[in-house]
Amino acid sequence: MADSQVDVIVVGAGISGLSAAKLLNESGLKVLVLEARDRVGGRTYTIQDSKHGPVDVGGAYVGPTQNRVFRLAKEFGLQFYDVSEKEKTVLNVQGTWAKYIGTIPPLWNPIQLLDLNHVIRTINSMAKEVPCDAPWKAKKADKWDTMTVKQFVDSIAWTSTVKELIRIFVVSVMCVEMHEVSLLFALWYINSGGGIARLSSITNGAQEKKFYGGSQQLSEKMAAKLGPVVLLSKPVISIEQDGDTVRVTDNKGSVYKSRYVISAVPQALLNRIQFEPPLPSQKLQLIQRIPMGSIIKTIMFYPEPFWKKLDMCGSAVSDTGIISYCIDDTKPDGSHPALMGFILADKAREVIHMTKEERKQAVCEHYRNVFKSAKFLQPVDYVEHNWMSEEYSGGCYVSTMPPGAMTRYGRYLREPFGIIHFAGTESATYRAGYMEGAIESGERAAREILYEIGKISQHQVYQDEPESTDHPASSLENSKIDQFLPSVTRLIQIAMAIVLGMLGNQIYSWFRG
Amino acid sequence: MADSQVDVIVVGAGISGLSAAKLLNESGLKVLVLEARDRVGGRTYTIQDSKHGPVDVGGAYVGPTQNRVFRLAKEFGLQFYDVSEKEKTVLNVQGTWAKYIGTIPPLWNPIQLLDLNHVIRTINSMAKEVPCDAPWKAKKADKWDTMTVKQFVDSIAWTSTVKELIRIFVVSVMCVEMHEVSLLFALWYINSGGGIARLSSITNGAQEKKFYGGSQQLSEKMAAKLGPVVLLSKPVISIEQDGDTVRVTDNKGSVYKSRYVISAVPQALLNRIQFEPPLPSQKLQLIQRIPMGSIIKTIMFYPEPFWKKLDMCGSAVSDTGIISYCIDDTKPDGSHPALMGFILADKAREVIHMTKEERKQAVCEHYRNVFKSAKFLQPVDYVEHNWMSEEYSGGCYVSTMPPGAMTRYGRYLREPFGIIHFAGTESATYRAGYMEGAIESGERAAREILYEIGKISQHQVYQDEPESTDHPASSLENSKIDQFLPSVTRLIQIAMAIVLGMLGNQIYSWFRG
Repeated sequence: MADSQVDVIVVGAGISGLSAAKLLNESGLKVLVLEARDRVGGRTYTIQDSKHGPVDVGGAYVGPTQNRVFRLAKEFGLQFYDVSEKEKTVLNVQGTWAKYIGTIPPLWNPIQLLDLNHVIRTINSMAKEVPCDAPWKAKKADKWDTMTVKQFVDSIAWTSTVKELIRIFVVSVMCVEMHEVSLLFALWYINSGGGIARLSSITNGAQEKKFYGGSQQLSEKMAAKLGPVVLLSKPVISIEQDGDTVRVTDNKGSVYKSRYVISAVPQALLNRIQFEPPLPSQKLQLIQRIPMGSIIKTIMFYPEPFWKKLDMCGSAVSDTGIISYCIDDTKPDGSHPALMGFILADKAREVIHMTKEERKQAVCEHYRNVFKSAKFLQPVDYVEHNWMSEEYSGGCYVSTMPPGAMTRYGRYLREPFGIIHFAGTESATYRAGYMEGAIESGERAAREILYEIGKISQHQVYQDEPESTDHPASSLENSKIDQFLPSVTRLIQIAMAIVLGMLGNQIYSWFRG
Repeated sequence: MADSQVDVIVVGAGISGLSAAKLLNESGLKVLVLEARDRVGGRTYTIQDSKHGPVDVGGAYVGPTQNRVFRLAKEFGLQFYDVSEKEKTVLNVQGTWAKYIGTIPPLWNPIQLLDLNHVIRTINSMAKEVPCDAPWKAKKADKWDTMTVKQFVDSIAWTSTVKELIRIFVVSVMCVEMHEVSLLFALWYINSGGGIARLSSITNGAQEKKFYGGSQQLSEKMAAKLGPVVLLSKPVISIEQDGDTVRVTDNKGSVYKSRYVISAVPQALLNRIQFEPPLPSQKLQLIQRIPMGSIIKTIMFYPEPFWKKLDMCGSAVSDTGIISYCIDDTKPDGSHPALMGFILADKAREVIHMTKEERKQAVCEHYRNVFKSAKFLQPVDYVEHNWMSEEYSGGCYVSTMPPGAMTRYGRYLREPFGIIHFAGTESATYRAGYMEGAIESGERAAREILYEIGKISQHQVYQDEPESTDHPASSLENSKIDQFLPSVTRLIQIAMAIVLGMLGNQIYSWFRG
């Protein structure tokens, strides 16, 4: 393949790069895909376990509104199954232990309930003010980008339980602590993902479904369709552009030529490639300000799904122990009972020094504590994957931005550099960070090139996706009651007004005698 | 040189890498230095201007307590001159315009003065609680690393003028805005630099002196002494270690072998090198969380130093206009009158789109406004350097860390990885970010290797530097008055106590009749 010229070289054979290559290929262009790893899939990675079959140790979940994923899956005949959530979820936060059904945890203390309702409602409504395609244009962009999520949550939440629940939400969707993320970035990410309920739910949410056979198949199917133009174990070390041609060199010195390049490399890792001419100032500085999150994904296999007999579905939200959030990971036919557990953000950094065996023990003990059964100490197998050690990902699931980065550098996420275009789920304008965003950004980057060579018009570059007829989304609007429940501040104001009113009445009646 | 083995390969011929190589060479080891650029000096860069001679467009200033710089300069016969500060400095903040002598700006409003005194005193005293060699061990490390500097300053400063002065201090020493930096990182940096007064002063501070002939000479002299083992234009693209040997490959495929490697590459750019085996998880994540600052350094030449006749030394602190801080840059013999001006942080990002001519115009207009003389609109020459566009620096002067990074990843800044050791001013335990820190970290990395091969003992790895007899430092302790002046909060408490006392007295005298 070396020295023969193609139309477009795509760097990175994750979902984003392959979606771009697939679309270009279908549009009649000659493409070449160079992947650093010895496999496709990027942050989706399905281990073929000798005993338990396919196990997703990377991105696994898909839910309604991720219509591009459903479209591609359908094209390749890939099927989904629903994640088990029939029984109850466990809440183990701030000393409270409870079992509940649904998304919103059961806070029996009405102050906590009002507080949680108010905080979620406020964040969702602020998120809606942040344009998905240009978060730096939000009216309050400067204000929100100069504070952390922690700073904001501390300022509006009254109760430590609610602060802790929001913290668990943030670590569970972004793999960093609240103090690491710009409020503006988080609001953008939440809006891009459809709001807090959509992001944090199983049923009707981002964790509703898994692929039969694992999520990596999506990339494998695309790669198989593209055929021998997908080259593995080819880490790109330099990209030189010279007007009309790009020379791409891999780590063995092989040179590939093309008219355009699409980079589907995580932005945080773009420094791994020497660009000639160098990337412009703004891009050089951006890629230093978009770190990947911290996560070790674990799967613990048990002889049977005994949690179901205890009326628990396997999900637990916890602020103690090693696992912040876990979900049943039993195969859809009921075989290979298992729990998937995320070790996230600071927890992941804490336990990185442990041996795998020590982590296994800590995970089992955690399950015993949150599900209150000693049976969890007797697993049959343990699989884990530390994404922080993956040099071609740098972390998982996604990059976030600290304060100051989105307003100052966000617009360079997908600004082309000469004839180099940028894909990757971080550059998406819809469901950024998810498989859906990977496809959206890959196809958008491909269409930028189709537009440049005159195959489509400019308004066709960004395209909405029709809703999947097989997997339509239900609305997740708050109930009317939730919308009108007072915040704690408002409740106190109302209470004070009532007390003052009663006092006034009493004084009045004194005077009247 | 290729394929012949040396003892140590040093990657990066800035001050840090060259200090390391020099010490190893003097200890009898065979070294090789590989530099990506076609020059030595890294972030110190002296342009040889055809009309104006040597012009420092990178790191230039040195002051008392930077004793390693003085030691090396003396060895090579390099001389210093004092930066001009005889006349007055201009303060142009929050609508106030004033001329003053010394470091602390003249705030005539006593509330502002008390506020400034209190905020500086508080930050300095907190900084002293942060160990320079292990900031993550500070008692309040977790608390301080989960907030930004802005968040802290907003919480303790009463007046917008003081907030703005602290903001200018932060952008002037770190090239990022207050909301971008972890409070813990800033406190560590301030402590490592000797406190706010030392960092922000000319006389007796970090901006006291410049090198006759430019600061890059320090590196040039070291490189000349090392001789042909310093190879330029050799960007290292991979470092493979295999037990006892390291194979270092440059971008042309040349391979160099050694027993040890010292990386003197900025940590934010370590991703440019493919490590085999890959860097450990913690280092991979650290290097995504230590972005370089944003700066364009400017030098404006004028026909004469007319500011001196206006009783102004050429320094101005300003919260409006393009230049936050400027200093006289006239040659020590009075020739080539000039002002050096920093375009910093958000300002640098704002004006990056301008042409050089537009920036020149903006700088001149700024000088006219802050020095109140139209003569500043008539320069004879303009030199600027945009460090954000330097692919082998990534920015300047220094890396900072956003919230959450120092406590979670700081300990991996200089933790060796196999037989690879880490230098660079960001890894220093003394005057980090400065030339002094570059030398301290370079010599420390060299001594780590000298210890490993049994040439020195472990307690010799970290060494204090005796004070320069030529350039001793005076104390910068606050005056007794400053130490005991009340904060604004305390003042209000005192005032309220007095008012309540008077009121009580009055009531008492009523009752006494």
